[in-house]
Amino acid sequence: MERVEQHACAGGRQEVWKHRSDVLNCEMKFGIFLPEAATQGDPCPVVYWLSGLTCTEQNFITKAGAQAHAARHGLIVVAPDTSPRGDGVADDPAYDLGQGAGFYLNATQGPWAAHYRMQDYVALELPELVERHFAAQSRRSIMGHSMGGHGALITALRHPGRYQSVSAFSPIVAPSQVPWGEKAFTAYLGEDRQAWAEWDAVELIRHATERLPLLVDQGEADEFLVNQLRPELLEQACRAAHHPLTLRRQPGYDHSYYFIATFLADHFAHHARALSF
Amino acid sequence: MERVEQHACAGGRQEVWKHRSDVLNCEMKFGIFLPEAATQGDPCPVVYWLSGLTCTEQNFITKAGAQAHAARHGLIVVAPDTSPRGDGVADDPAYDLGQGAGFYLNATQGPWAAHYRMQDYVALELPELVERHFAAQSRRSIMGHSMGGHGALITALRHPGRYQSVSAFSPIVAPSQVPWGEKAFTAYLGEDRQAWAEWDAVELIRHATERLPLLVDQGEADEFLVNQLRPELLEQACRAAHHPLTLRRQPGYDHSYYFIATFLADHFAHHARALSF
Repeated sequence: MERVEQHACAGGRQEVWKHRSDVLNCEMKFGIFLPEAATQGDPCPVVYWLSGLTCTEQNFITKAGAQAHAARHGLIVVAPDTSPRGDGVADDPAYDLGQGAGFYLNATQGPWAAHYRMQDYVALELPELVERHFAAQSRRSIMGHSMGGHGALITALRHPGRYQSVSAFSPIVAPSQVPWGEKAFTAYLGEDRQAWAEWDAVELIRHATERLPLLVDQGEADEFLVNQLRPELLEQACRAAHHPLTLRRQPGYDHSYYFIATFLADHFAHHARALSF
Repeated sequence: MERVEQHACAGGRQEVWKHRSDVLNCEMKFGIFLPEAATQGDPCPVVYWLSGLTCTEQNFITKAGAQAHAARHGLIVVAPDTSPRGDGVADDPAYDLGQGAGFYLNATQGPWAAHYRMQDYVALELPELVERHFAAQSRRSIMGHSMGGHGALITALRHPGRYQSVSAFSPIVAPSQVPWGEKAFTAYLGEDRQAWAEWDAVELIRHATERLPLLVDQGEADEFLVNQLRPELLEQACRAAHHPLTLRRQPGYDHSYYFIATFLADHFAHHARALSF
């Protein structure tokens, strides 16, 4: 592990670390905000943030204004990259496949299977690393945006008991039914749609054993709302499965970090409540 | 004027506009945040933000978290670019001269004189435009960072009565005495150091007719502190001239937007107090 950035921020420290990932078999970076208590060795709960397509570990830490909220609640925030990286890692020229587009799953197909195991990375290897190297409790929450909202939902649903709370901004809720998901799942998981269900929040909700309440914010002026995001599919699945969901449709808001920054305080409050029990 | 970006944010709107500047003789962009009241036609006071070297109109609007503070106080925030721009505009390969490095002065020398009139742009043309096209009062404040902190200080000091308040993060306070300023002033203003004094905050303070209180935040871990920023020179000049100055040295903080985001709420409170009289 090597620290590559360190900035005083909101009374604590925003850092970026580089490390060798055994799961992904490449070098990875992640951002971590340590509130003042954690910088003094006092263990704090951890909120994981999963970013969307094209993002790195930088977007959330520079654009969301998360540190002020995390400092207020005494929370560590960890923001990983969105895929394995490097010259030896399979890639695709399109923005929605390959590096920058890991979709937080474990790939089984073709050139992707060697490195694209983002689900095991964000759910297992990264928390283990964070809890070993920093003043971090094993109490965890998870949230994300767009592809990372999908990632947060499936990661929590696939690991009952592992997260105290989950939330998402503009998530891809039903990747098996929308173009972004169909393209990525075909490449990473193959043509057999049966194999897709375990990576699809709307499918996972049907069989969820844990009733973790979902908080979802969705901008109504989001350019991807109708074709890629389709929150009504999550709403229907939650209603059918009696799964608790708070879906807030925000008039006028788009898919950008301006939207995230506006409502992020509510998400931190949601996670802080769950983490302080 | 053409609107090139529009995002709902913090109950109002973050917009980016493109327009032809007569003063700079080129096309320019600026960011403008309109709090909810201004989007409904209710005139609001305006805070101008001047960015530092290499920045465009984007850095502050995407990284500082300013919109939440501006919304709370009902303030418009205008963030111009840092120099004239375009293929026909003189430039230099270095990051600290030419495009991205206008230093908020009116150049008199060589190829720069044709376009580099940023002082007249930010102090006169841009406010005139903003107050004509938006629900903007003529009550104004000004702040900035680094080169833009220098810009905010000199613009307020050169225009007594025009601004209700002024503040700066990590400003270049004495450009005539530091490498960044000496290089830029030599190029834009010529070798005669007499001509530099009217663009140097430490020099202008000596003759200030208006006692506008200065609020300055400076990180003590700022990598440019000793060679380029030298806040002690502003402190000495203010003491000698009996000019009110609140200089806060913030231990551990560097030159980044993490520093700005941490203390920006205090600056907005400072400006809101002055603008609400």
